[in-house]
Amino acid sequence: MSDKRRRRGRPDRSAAPTDAPPNYVRGLAPHDLLTAQQVVAVETEAERLLEEIGIDMAGNDDLCARFDAAGARVENGRVHFPAGLGHELCATAPSEFTMTARNPARSVTFGGDNLVFGPGDSIPFVTDLDEGRRYGTVADHANLTKLVQMSPGLHHNGQAVCEISDVAVNKRHLDLSLHQLTLTDKPMMGATLTPEAARDSLDMSRIVFGDDTVDSSHVMLAGTNAQSPLAFEARTLDVLRVYSEANQPSLITPFVIAGAMSPVTMAAVLAQVHAEVQAGVAITQLYRQGCPAVYSSFVTTMDLRTGAPTYGTPESTLANAAIPQLARRLGLPVRAGGHITASKVLDGQAMQESADACTAAVLAGANYVLQAAGWLEGGLTISFEKFVVDAHRCEAMGRLVQGIAFDDNAFAADAYREVAEAGGTTFLGAAHTYANMRTANIDAGLADTASFEQWTEEGSLTVAERANAKWKQMLADYEPPPLDDSIHAALVDFVTDKKGAAADAWY
Amino acid sequence: MSDKRRRRGRPDRSAAPTDAPPNYVRGLAPHDLLTAQQVVAVETEAERLLEEIGIDMAGNDDLCARFDAAGARVENGRVHFPAGLGHELCATAPSEFTMTARNPARSVTFGGDNLVFGPGDSIPFVTDLDEGRRYGTVADHANLTKLVQMSPGLHHNGQAVCEISDVAVNKRHLDLSLHQLTLTDKPMMGATLTPEAARDSLDMSRIVFGDDTVDSSHVMLAGTNAQSPLAFEARTLDVLRVYSEANQPSLITPFVIAGAMSPVTMAAVLAQVHAEVQAGVAITQLYRQGCPAVYSSFVTTMDLRTGAPTYGTPESTLANAAIPQLARRLGLPVRAGGHITASKVLDGQAMQESADACTAAVLAGANYVLQAAGWLEGGLTISFEKFVVDAHRCEAMGRLVQGIAFDDNAFAADAYREVAEAGGTTFLGAAHTYANMRTANIDAGLADTASFEQWTEEGSLTVAERANAKWKQMLADYEPPPLDDSIHAALVDFVTDKKGAAADAWY
Repeated sequence: MSDKRRRRGRPDRSAAPTDAPPNYVRGLAPHDLLTAQQVVAVETEAERLLEEIGIDMAGNDDLCARFDAAGARVENGRVHFPAGLGHELCATAPSEFTMTARNPARSVTFGGDNLVFGPGDSIPFVTDLDEGRRYGTVADHANLTKLVQMSPGLHHNGQAVCEISDVAVNKRHLDLSLHQLTLTDKPMMGATLTPEAARDSLDMSRIVFGDDTVDSSHVMLAGTNAQSPLAFEARTLDVLRVYSEANQPSLITPFVIAGAMSPVTMAAVLAQVHAEVQAGVAITQLYRQGCPAVYSSFVTTMDLRTGAPTYGTPESTLANAAIPQLARRLGLPVRAGGHITASKVLDGQAMQESADACTAAVLAGANYVLQAAGWLEGGLTISFEKFVVDAHRCEAMGRLVQGIAFDDNAFAADAYREVAEAGGTTFLGAAHTYANMRTANIDAGLADTASFEQWTEEGSLTVAERANAKWKQMLADYEPPPLDDSIHAALVDFVTDKKGAAADAWY
Repeated sequence: MSDKRRRRGRPDRSAAPTDAPPNYVRGLAPHDLLTAQQVVAVETEAERLLEEIGIDMAGNDDLCARFDAAGARVENGRVHFPAGLGHELCATAPSEFTMTARNPARSVTFGGDNLVFGPGDSIPFVTDLDEGRRYGTVADHANLTKLVQMSPGLHHNGQAVCEISDVAVNKRHLDLSLHQLTLTDKPMMGATLTPEAARDSLDMSRIVFGDDTVDSSHVMLAGTNAQSPLAFEARTLDVLRVYSEANQPSLITPFVIAGAMSPVTMAAVLAQVHAEVQAGVAITQLYRQGCPAVYSSFVTTMDLRTGAPTYGTPESTLANAAIPQLARRLGLPVRAGGHITASKVLDGQAMQESADACTAAVLAGANYVLQAAGWLEGGLTISFEKFVVDAHRCEAMGRLVQGIAFDDNAFAADAYREVAEAGGTTFLGAAHTYANMRTANIDAGLADTASFEQWTEEGSLTVAERANAKWKQMLADYEPPPLDDSIHAALVDFVTDKKGAAADAWY
């Protein structure tokens, strides 16, 4: 395992195939958006929120007692952190950790110089150009999980890439986990709806990974939200306890639409996020010191005329680009950004907002970008077409963070000599161009680069229409990653038993 | 005038109305993408190109003699710069200068912390959702110039926002200049097709501004390209001479599609751009020391399978984000980025590529972004719909570079007290939210933020369809900025006389 307490530097990748790193590794230094004084101002205000207002722990007596013992002041289920306690409790969480995949070559590293992309998650509707918008089903979830497996730009699974409306709410996590453990061999997320669901998904991972691996590594990432402002729900705390005690990492995610769950101004958003994350990570450390946790965030704006959420706005971009810098101060892996939008379709708005919601956060040093493929309509719908366009853009972001190569080949001195000696004015035929043509640029993906005439001849397709053909081809090409038949059967038995043991609940 | 030789700091804006700065002013520090060593490596390689390979000056004897006198080695019309000469000659160009508009409140500053956006330029076709793609006409150019005037995100005119196919090639600049001098009061660009056209547009500006203003300030920006690799065309040199001797600023623009006009690797692209810009700025200084020039650039990639240009790719983004840092080393205002794309329509590809081609360059400190509105199809077509979507995105970029406000209001301590005292969990009704709701976020523009149901009821429109209604409304609302009737008549007379004095040429 590679849990590490350090600020920078690269993990040992010797175990990974050198020709296909499982996640992207940054060559560019992270872009620090805030001045040193601004960082201190945010930290000071976060300390004030933690101390004066405190964090509502939903009356969880056991947890409150742990905080009391750690030095906090607890009043009416609200935990007030004296100055420095948040930092102190966060300090035992690792700055880097490995998410172990069932295919070891797919295990990814969170933190440090690493960049991991995951798909849309917790999305009720699906849409595609053929069938339009409808509630997600088991079949849709299987297809979307296959697309995760087939997308080089995506390194990690979501949990409910779409929700599965054709299964009872209290049994959905079983099918979701089954898909993540059978249809893909990339790292997985765990169920978080209830502590029971969390335990079920952990039990299912034991069938595949074995107890030793589950107990000694991190096989399941739990997505949990703070109940902003400055609170954690009782059920979230119970779920955090299950995963933390099992030494499985959690995302601590303030879900903030500025002006609703926080003040409307971004300095306040940052301070509140910084306070809430410290509290959440502290919770994980009180349940199990040294357990990994991610400084997560979901921050966006609203249209203040209507109250509707807005995405990719400059104000939310600024917040998302500042958050990685704040996380580095705590030495924690950080999630920020996403390919997110309010648009209902894969149009210009959708892709502009998605790009704007992602780029600055990635340049700023985000380690993990969830909601990076498929998202439409404020997260209510996942689009098969947008999924494949977004997933290719993840590849572009992966290339971006590598930065520019500087070596003798990159300066191409010989090419100038060759062109000059030939008396030419173009590098199109130069030996250097041929030698580098396969590696110089990433593949153009679904981008149309043809002439207007050729594009017209080919049907004047938009990128959405080209993407429609692409995801179908990917599903046609899909092959399940190898899994021992007996393990597969044991998983199916587990799901069947659990489903049989309880009545359906549709709440 | 505010020509200044300094690296940072803000211009005196006392003459501008405080409620409407004519261009954006950066609060964020520019993002330095390259390490100090990488910058030196680029500079060293640029010096090598300037010295060893040299710059072809198309056999311009007068110019070659000037370079010889300045210490260069000239061989067969090729100027070889000894180490340091490029820097030395660039040092007399100002780091900041003002482009004077005929409405003084619209005068903008190039360089320093300023950010100026201009529309698409030199584009032969126009398109809109009603009439589709066709050659641009005088009427189209008038409408696009009106849209520049009506767009708060655009601070400066292009010259041929579209080309005007219904006017003879040798007379087009007359109509283009007439539009820029009558339909808008934002700063203008000058004609660059021939030295005669350049002189005509300068003469027309004298009718409007008067000789004193033209002679003592900068009223016309000339867009000139290097003939990459490492050459300037004879006609470009003649045009540069006209503008430089008149103390009017020029863009020195290496137009580089990597793999064709330069090696395919981005380190080489940067070195070549850095060499070509130094040579071009040196030319302006040899014609008139102290004349302003802009470190300009147009750098993109190609699909190496087909040779077709590609836009917004991660490789080109890296180059565009490194260029402002290189320009700052020379103390020159810098142009980088643009809302550019290979897409034929305003679809997801168009806006993703446009966003990606712009954001990183703006974060990196670009002072001027030309081609920032309307561009489609590699610059062959300008779209009325994309124009208004892009122009709004310029407003978003303007907000982005301001950064996050840090003051007592931004931290909103009172809002937490108010919400806590009310026992509430939302800031929607808080006094702080109301007090800040008009200024906290920029307007959502054409972004759809409605519910799926409402969006469906309203016709399931894409952003392109909403933009179609928007530009028509803008043209309907347009009012020409005031201009003295006698000046207008004199301009029309000038154009009529010039058109009558020469036969039409359609080459």
